[in-house]
Amino acid sequence: MKQWVYHFGAGEVPQTHAQGSELLGGKGASLAEMSSLGIPVPPGFTITTDVCTYHHLHNKNYPDSLQTQIKESIKWLENKVGFVLGDSNNPLLVSVRSGAHVSMPGMMDTVLNLGLNDQTVVGLAKKTQDPRFAYDSYRRFIQMYGNVVLNVDHHYFEDILSRYKENYALREDTDLSETAWQEIISDYKKIIRARTGNDFPQNVNDQLWQAIGAVFSSWMNQRAITYRRIHNMSDKGGTAVNIQAMVFGNMGENCATGVAFTRNPSTGENEFYGEYLMNAQGEDVVAGIRTPQSLTQRARMLEKSDQPSLEESMPLVFKELSDIRQKLERHFRDMQDIEFTIQKGKLWMLQTRSGKRTAASALKIAVDMAESGLITRDEAINRIDPLSLEQLLHPVLDPKAPKKLLTRGLPASPGAASGRVVFTADEAETRANAGESVILVRVETSPEDIHGMHAAKGILTSRGGMTSHAAVVARGMGRPCVVGASALKIDYQKQTMIIQGTLVKAGDKITLVGGNGEVLLGEVPTIQPVLSSDFTTLMQWADTRRHLKVRANAETPKDAEVARQFGAEGIGLCRTEHMFFEEERILWVRQMILAQNEQERKNALAKLLPVQRDDFIALFNIMQELPVTIRLLDPPLHEFLPHSDREMRDIANLLKLDVEIIRRRAEELHEMNPMLGHRGCRLGISFPEIYEMQVRAILEAALVADITPNIEIMIPLIATKVEMEIMKKLVERVASQVFDEKKKTISFQIGTMIELPRAALRAQEIAEHAEFFSFGTNDLTQTTLGLSRDDAGSFLQTYRKQGIFKSDPFASLDIEGVGELMRMAAERGKFQRPGLKLGICGEHGGDPESIYFCEEIGLDYVSCSPYRVPIARLAAAQATIRCSFRCANNIDIKLATKLSNAG
Amino acid sequence: MKQWVYHFGAGEVPQTHAQGSELLGGKGASLAEMSSLGIPVPPGFTITTDVCTYHHLHNKNYPDSLQTQIKESIKWLENKVGFVLGDSNNPLLVSVRSGAHVSMPGMMDTVLNLGLNDQTVVGLAKKTQDPRFAYDSYRRFIQMYGNVVLNVDHHYFEDILSRYKENYALREDTDLSETAWQEIISDYKKIIRARTGNDFPQNVNDQLWQAIGAVFSSWMNQRAITYRRIHNMSDKGGTAVNIQAMVFGNMGENCATGVAFTRNPSTGENEFYGEYLMNAQGEDVVAGIRTPQSLTQRARMLEKSDQPSLEESMPLVFKELSDIRQKLERHFRDMQDIEFTIQKGKLWMLQTRSGKRTAASALKIAVDMAESGLITRDEAINRIDPLSLEQLLHPVLDPKAPKKLLTRGLPASPGAASGRVVFTADEAETRANAGESVILVRVETSPEDIHGMHAAKGILTSRGGMTSHAAVVARGMGRPCVVGASALKIDYQKQTMIIQGTLVKAGDKITLVGGNGEVLLGEVPTIQPVLSSDFTTLMQWADTRRHLKVRANAETPKDAEVARQFGAEGIGLCRTEHMFFEEERILWVRQMILAQNEQERKNALAKLLPVQRDDFIALFNIMQELPVTIRLLDPPLHEFLPHSDREMRDIANLLKLDVEIIRRRAEELHEMNPMLGHRGCRLGISFPEIYEMQVRAILEAALVADITPNIEIMIPLIATKVEMEIMKKLVERVASQVFDEKKKTISFQIGTMIELPRAALRAQEIAEHAEFFSFGTNDLTQTTLGLSRDDAGSFLQTYRKQGIFKSDPFASLDIEGVGELMRMAAERGKFQRPGLKLGICGEHGGDPESIYFCEEIGLDYVSCSPYRVPIARLAAAQATIRCSFRCANNIDIKLATKLSNAG
Repeated sequence: MKQWVYHFGAGEVPQTHAQGSELLGGKGASLAEMSSLGIPVPPGFTITTDVCTYHHLHNKNYPDSLQTQIKESIKWLENKVGFVLGDSNNPLLVSVRSGAHVSMPGMMDTVLNLGLNDQTVVGLAKKTQDPRFAYDSYRRFIQMYGNVVLNVDHHYFEDILSRYKENYALREDTDLSETAWQEIISDYKKIIRARTGNDFPQNVNDQLWQAIGAVFSSWMNQRAITYRRIHNMSDKGGTAVNIQAMVFGNMGENCATGVAFTRNPSTGENEFYGEYLMNAQGEDVVAGIRTPQSLTQRARMLEKSDQPSLEESMPLVFKELSDIRQKLERHFRDMQDIEFTIQKGKLWMLQTRSGKRTAASALKIAVDMAESGLITRDEAINRIDPLSLEQLLHPVLDPKAPKKLLTRGLPASPGAASGRVVFTADEAETRANAGESVILVRVETSPEDIHGMHAAKGILTSRGGMTSHAAVVARGMGRPCVVGASALKIDYQKQTMIIQGTLVKAGDKITLVGGNGEVLLGEVPTIQPVLSSDFTTLMQWADTRRHLKVRANAETPKDAEVARQFGAEGIGLCRTEHMFFEEERILWVRQMILAQNEQERKNALAKLLPVQRDDFIALFNIMQELPVTIRLLDPPLHEFLPHSDREMRDIANLLKLDVEIIRRRAEELHEMNPMLGHRGCRLGISFPEIYEMQVRAILEAALVADITPNIEIMIPLIATKVEMEIMKKLVERVASQVFDEKKKTISFQIGTMIELPRAALRAQEIAEHAEFFSFGTNDLTQTTLGLSRDDAGSFLQTYRKQGIFKSDPFASLDIEGVGELMRMAAERGKFQRPGLKLGICGEHGGDPESIYFCEEIGLDYVSCSPYRVPIARLAAAQATIRCSFRCANNIDIKLATKLSNAG
Repeated sequence: MKQWVYHFGAGEVPQTHAQGSELLGGKGASLAEMSSLGIPVPPGFTITTDVCTYHHLHNKNYPDSLQTQIKESIKWLENKVGFVLGDSNNPLLVSVRSGAHVSMPGMMDTVLNLGLNDQTVVGLAKKTQDPRFAYDSYRRFIQMYGNVVLNVDHHYFEDILSRYKENYALREDTDLSETAWQEIISDYKKIIRARTGNDFPQNVNDQLWQAIGAVFSSWMNQRAITYRRIHNMSDKGGTAVNIQAMVFGNMGENCATGVAFTRNPSTGENEFYGEYLMNAQGEDVVAGIRTPQSLTQRARMLEKSDQPSLEESMPLVFKELSDIRQKLERHFRDMQDIEFTIQKGKLWMLQTRSGKRTAASALKIAVDMAESGLITRDEAINRIDPLSLEQLLHPVLDPKAPKKLLTRGLPASPGAASGRVVFTADEAETRANAGESVILVRVETSPEDIHGMHAAKGILTSRGGMTSHAAVVARGMGRPCVVGASALKIDYQKQTMIIQGTLVKAGDKITLVGGNGEVLLGEVPTIQPVLSSDFTTLMQWADTRRHLKVRANAETPKDAEVARQFGAEGIGLCRTEHMFFEEERILWVRQMILAQNEQERKNALAKLLPVQRDDFIALFNIMQELPVTIRLLDPPLHEFLPHSDREMRDIANLLKLDVEIIRRRAEELHEMNPMLGHRGCRLGISFPEIYEMQVRAILEAALVADITPNIEIMIPLIATKVEMEIMKKLVERVASQVFDEKKKTISFQIGTMIELPRAALRAQEIAEHAEFFSFGTNDLTQTTLGLSRDDAGSFLQTYRKQGIFKSDPFASLDIEGVGELMRMAAERGKFQRPGLKLGICGEHGGDPESIYFCEEIGLDYVSCSPYRVPIARLAAAQATIRCSFRCANNIDIKLATKLSNAG
């Protein structure tokens, strides 16, 4: 007969220890473990998650033997505690709680005080000699049961209670007497009858079975389903049900209840940290009706409180609790979040689990525990969510400041920033030069806006997704950025925007929170981050562990310097076109594009050559001998032309051209789908003189730089072997010209982006001519999924809601689709050229899940925006640990992830 | 010692027969074969293509033993004919001709009369007793040798000759005397000295070796390289050199020269067909200086000529030639194109090869030969180039009419059409309704122009590629269409266009030739096609042979009827959005798009439902029980909205809406890359009510149609399994509603397009929910190559010139890239669902090379525009033959193609 029920507490032999939380749920497993450690927990038993699964698969029926097993378990429990369920004189009260494998706080249901009815409440009153307590407990039970099991909405009960208090001019629940509760109980029962058509059940067995059923059903309630979808969790698994003898912290002044962390969850300090309330139930601590007291004397003194700490009020219990704290940390090898109740001087532990903590405290705890030998360095590395480091690297809002939320967009680039609204890049620059902080607000940004984005403290757009132009550039610059805030109705003419009814004018102040996409009215104060020594220590451990190198995507000297400060080991993507947009050069670029023939084009390019060369010299001098991957011109030429009539006239005047010529050229260059248009190496093949100029600038710069730079010239948008061959010959031809002229040579590599499905498929033959591949996963995602990152905003939300995309494929690699192409390309490329260097330079290069995959398929490096470098360094170390764990154990990657995280 | 030289003629044992044309070149092999058949050919020898390869790989040197072998061969030749090379009294003259494996007419060089010099010409004069002939031959030799070997341009020689004729007031070459030729020879020698710095070589051995070298070199001249690139031929292979004793048709009235076809190459009639000239050399026939005479008496009488036919003038020779005609056809099992010379009453055959023919004659010849048992039916099927059938299905220009070419664009849809230029779809409709023939000229077309395209006789655009909107729609309608004619400068305002300097106004007449992309000024008369019984016969043979079913892409009843007439076995793609553009419905469609909420949207859809249902009823009644694949709405909604201010105002008035609402909605819906935007099933997921209406219309129509239609509902742009699952549930839900309401059911299938790389990669799981796959290779090509079919025009030409694309990937499948994804999808889909039906509905479904590949990977059907159906039927039969040949012989597909074509 299958065992559906496991006991815990009361010195029970831990028959369940090995079963773990998958079978018993998190709560059940922790109770069993505490029990096995000899820690006092109120006895009880867990009905396994298997029963939940059975229940949902069998039309809400239960396994045959369950009834017997529960009956026997109740009997066992009655024996252990000396009370009897439903006994009018000596009633056993139990709690019925859910407990899924993975914590889903607040998502599922709990019933306390089960076992009370019109008879047993009398017995309880007699036995405790506390009728007020007994009737309060009974009404609490009816309220919870009514809500959870009978689906009668909370507010019906709350209405009755508040009406009663109003009638009698009472303020606190504690002001209500035994008879008051009795009256309320009577009203509660009436409302249950009215809402459900049935009386409140008096049979305690019915109560028990219905509560069990309600908890199992809550696994599939809408709230829980939504929660799991949002947190990317499976609907499989189910919840366990824990039935446990009630203990009470509200039976007098020798009673108390509290919550605690084994270390300080804000700072990570190794100090006992928590709160308790005398003569109260757990829910009262949470409800915040009374101000809880500190656990320790030290904390009380720091807070200058006159309420005694537990250490002072119940020194013996405190001592026992402190011992348990040590025991739990040693056992679970992590900071614990615990709940306890003291019933008439006796300590009972109700819960222990890993405690939530801030990024800073997580770092400190991990480093402290590793240094004290409690966990290994690998475990310390695995304990930190790489993305949480963003909190440490960017300014955050002062949590104490008031906020007025205007709307929420996509969290495109982290950090918080305040400033005055401006609607054009020029305005942004002007005001910034005058010393003002500005937020640049646009429907969407284009390369022409770069100077304004640089000048702004933050960027807000109403269109676009996580890899839209604004998002990518802002991340690169480390500017806070919110995109796709579709509630914004921008009117450029009037220089205003309306956000869900609020009018915001140019010059008004707003605040952006790039980390969560919030747009706030006015200036909200922010706090600047300070990097701790724990950060440095952990990053050092990560660096010694990881295989993947981490590079940055950077063009400007400033970005390159930031990248090096954050530990970048090279530049993985230098987008040369970003260098084309500065004041003077953009004119030459436009002259080049507007040229009527090759000679005119060459003349314009000749002017660009020296400035482009100077850019590279500066970059090489910063990066020293570290590798620098330079991508030749990628975007279609029309991106460089002006769009508005006014701008066209200005350019016409500057270049002494008929404005019609500009208009016609712009029309000629217009494309239906620029993403799939005349760009990348297609430009290099149509207008070889452009690439020739760029290659010349790179190599001439290399020959005069202070050091010998490590250059990789990268050709974008290759789809065929022949393109690669032609481009390689072009680069080699220019190189040998430059080397002849300068009588000096330098070695460098020529490679390509893999950013089209065809390039991935034909990687073997492309590798004949390419010395490295860099996966351009932004474009590879767009083409593989047929999904424009600029246009997907309109339906991406729907797609995530309906579970079509588990995460934004532009933020985290679509491993099943895009990933398969990457794997193929890596294998085929290496088959042709075993020494082929492999990297990634799409936005995914800074995403931890994507980085794990990059390790899996054997890339050599990832490249991401400078501010993501620390995240990538940590994620890369975790990837190494996972993969080596996987190889050592020859197991599936998902399991490896889980087990290596578990230590 | 390797044999570099092979002899032929003069009863030579055919040591070379088995070597075939790869070693000996086409000409050499045919001479050897004729020789082996006992047919009189002037003796000579062939220097193999291996020597050419050696020559190019070894810095223009020759194999060591070649000199000896040629010396011995000349000796052998001298013995056979009784003349001696360079002998002043008895000189041997030879021709030196190129002859590659595959015919490259006019691409490579030939030298005749080699062996003449200042001494031997005297001997020739004496021996022939015809000094004029001898000196004429010498000057011809100098001219050819000067041009081919010494690179002195033709015009220098022609100038001398014409100046001489002017000076002496002579008209024809035949007016020149012996002394005249001597004077000219002297001038020829001077010009050679002046241009080359050297005298014309008198040493006949030098002449021979330099001529051989020149022919070998001509393999890699620019003309030949370009020709091979255009015809998609390899640079490998090389040419052979044929050295052959000269025979002369210009030595008197018992001499003649001629060309003939063994059947009539225009009609295919089994009649001897050719021309000859008395007392002339081969080049004279081609030069057209004198009018050639007919070969047969019958032909002479039909032409009412008074010049005797060869049958009459030389009956014995004619009899011998007729016997040879029969022998050659029996031997080569195909219609032959032959050249012959009669020297002093003796017939010599100079060449035989498969004759070029019109599509109509190719059909007749293939059917006749198969019916007479000369070839098999499979061979007959293989003999016809499927694309050549287009000539038979569409009107063609009257070849006799004069033409003025304006420009040339891409040949987007075949057929010829004339009409008055109009620049808007509305104007096209108005004028067409008034009975005029019009040509619609647009920069590019959009779905709004459909009614104008329907009304027009032909469509011309200045933008776009082979699968641009204009091209696809025009092919579907069978309208001649030329796209991407970038020389057009259209001015909509002025209602004019300028084409390379010529102004064309609205109302002017032009003519389009869709088959070759020509745009002609004025109205050029066209000839309507009549389908022969041979066509019917061959198509029947093809139909019994092929595995692949052939369906058509069609929406309108008219298209469906045309498709059935051409033998379509179903509709493979019914694009429901094409049904949305007619006058009244487009308004409702717009109302639906402009709806402020779901209810308004549903109201508009309710109006569309009955008309869409009627469309389907009509379609089902035409298609009877044949399968009809209906694709639900695919294009992004903005395609249906008006673009110009005027149109927006009109719509606003009609719908009683503020024009600002329309403008704002259009802006909201605007996309950067619509191809990768909110379209296909993404619409079905965002706005399920649209798909619900369409499914309802389909199924309600099915229940009232005259027959039980065979319906396949197709979901576009699926990228993930979940999308497919959601869409399938939607269709099933609506179906069960409709069936419940109507108390009647019908079975149908639900499937998807495979048009995104991700869908191909995840085909296995998508097939869990899809009963069929239809490869949408237009979009799959766009995404796999990252190439917009609307924008690729600007660089596709460059790409083809540089050999990056061998053919337009939108016209013929990119088998290496897109093809691999298709193969994967087919395998993975079938692995999941062995009964999965597989088809293709992209433009490639009508392209023969693509169809062969579809057979290879096991598709069930191809679907193409109605006018391509016969082409597809034939190509499908050829595919079956190829593939079974391949399987039977277990060989590579390329070899199978070659061998199965060779019969």
